[in-house]
Amino acid sequence: MILIADNLQITNPAISAAVDDMLADPILKLVRQYSAAGADMIDINAGPLTKHAEKKMAFLVETVQAACSLPIVLDTANPHAIEAGLQAGKNKIIINGFSLESHKLKYILPLAARYHSDIIGYLLNPDGHVPPDASGRLTVAIELLGKFQNSGLEKRQLIIDPIVAPLLWQDGQHQAKAVLETIRSLPDVLGFKVRTVAGLSNLTSGAGGQPNRRFLEQAYMAMLGGNGLDMALLNIFNAQSVKVARAITALTGGKPFAYDEL
Amino acid sequence: MILIADNLQITNPAISAAVDDMLADPILKLVRQYSAAGADMIDINAGPLTKHAEKKMAFLVETVQAACSLPIVLDTANPHAIEAGLQAGKNKIIINGFSLESHKLKYILPLAARYHSDIIGYLLNPDGHVPPDASGRLTVAIELLGKFQNSGLEKRQLIIDPIVAPLLWQDGQHQAKAVLETIRSLPDVLGFKVRTVAGLSNLTSGAGGQPNRRFLEQAYMAMLGGNGLDMALLNIFNAQSVKVARAITALTGGKPFAYDEL
Repeated sequence: MILIADNLQITNPAISAAVDDMLADPILKLVRQYSAAGADMIDINAGPLTKHAEKKMAFLVETVQAACSLPIVLDTANPHAIEAGLQAGKNKIIINGFSLESHKLKYILPLAARYHSDIIGYLLNPDGHVPPDASGRLTVAIELLGKFQNSGLEKRQLIIDPIVAPLLWQDGQHQAKAVLETIRSLPDVLGFKVRTVAGLSNLTSGAGGQPNRRFLEQAYMAMLGGNGLDMALLNIFNAQSVKVARAITALTGGKPFAYDEL
Repeated sequence: MILIADNLQITNPAISAAVDDMLADPILKLVRQYSAAGADMIDINAGPLTKHAEKKMAFLVETVQAACSLPIVLDTANPHAIEAGLQAGKNKIIINGFSLESHKLKYILPLAARYHSDIIGYLLNPDGHVPPDASGRLTVAIELLGKFQNSGLEKRQLIIDPIVAPLLWQDGQHQAKAVLETIRSLPDVLGFKVRTVAGLSNLTSGAGGQPNRRFLEQAYMAMLGGNGLDMALLNIFNAQSVKVARAITALTGGKPFAYDEL
């Protein structure tokens, strides 16, 4: 299981202040902590970035690169910010991401082709809503792959995000099962072993400080891993989740197994 | 996820001594602890029980029944002890179990028919060895179901155990993946949603006091649960595993979800 830290979020006031003032040090320190905690990749969740979007994204990418050599995931709906991030990229860059929403097909998907970047595709309906079930997600996946290939991209550049919904939604359990079924079925439906990523923090979104949420996260990550999930986006400071992720890798990985490497 | 406590083992010296002296109190106390820790069923692991097998098994079943109303799993290869347990049974009784080994087909399987009991079938080769892969397990499952139905038993009485192997085996990871694939494939291969059980303690057998073993157990239980496993046999005092089991149930169960019920 490849772990992507979702901690670097512009909605965090400390990070927002550092970005506004172009102060690298606080961000360098945080990114080194994410890396030490077990992150395999760093997600830069920059939100819509309405003001000075390009400058801020370039600054964030450069700062992450000064802290580590991990791949960077550009998590924003702003195509100008994405392009600035791609131009600043020295580490491997992944775009997060596109969907069947028309503006994303028009403005974000072509960036992956132009910069030969990997890109995450969300299994969302064209109106941006979450499909109600696995069948809806798989239908979207087929359309998404079509748009993807029509843009001149190669299958190996695609990473699919089936969209984990909050358990507290009215149909939360049904959605949780739908995502499992989607991950399990994607290789058959698309005809190749497409890489997949899931945002685990979404699962317990709205649960506040519920002490049980970490067990849900751990259980769901392993349930997804047992069905073939490749990458998980999560709060990398959830140390027990990181341990469970390593256990999933030990259970399914190709490396000889040893307890002390967990 | 239904949790079966595997703690009541005759190899435990305290339990063995209590059974030898027919002292109910120490066993009553333990069984109440298993129940309080979250057990949904109690496995009586009586081993081969060579001396006074019937008397000892009847005593154990009666003592467990005096402590709780949970279903009891009779875990022994001794058919006389199993029959004594069935005769003493007031709680629901499950036989654990039979396989394609000829003496088990001859002496244990018919007991399930005679006492209308559920029975666990192991996916072992006729020589008692663990099949090397999922395909071997599924071939055994088909044969096992044939023998089962020829004995006049109904599908709903069958519970299949795909046999979790220790990770420390040379092909431990391969075996771990084979069990996942087996659980996932059984409903298609057998043509109905057969119930399944897995012995989780086997996974980390031989790992001694390795602090990481609990993460492996938690991860594997959820990976199995994500592929449809119904019941897990485990050390019920692994409190975090019990929490993860409840999370699996919350994620896949039919009950409305609430954090405080985990």
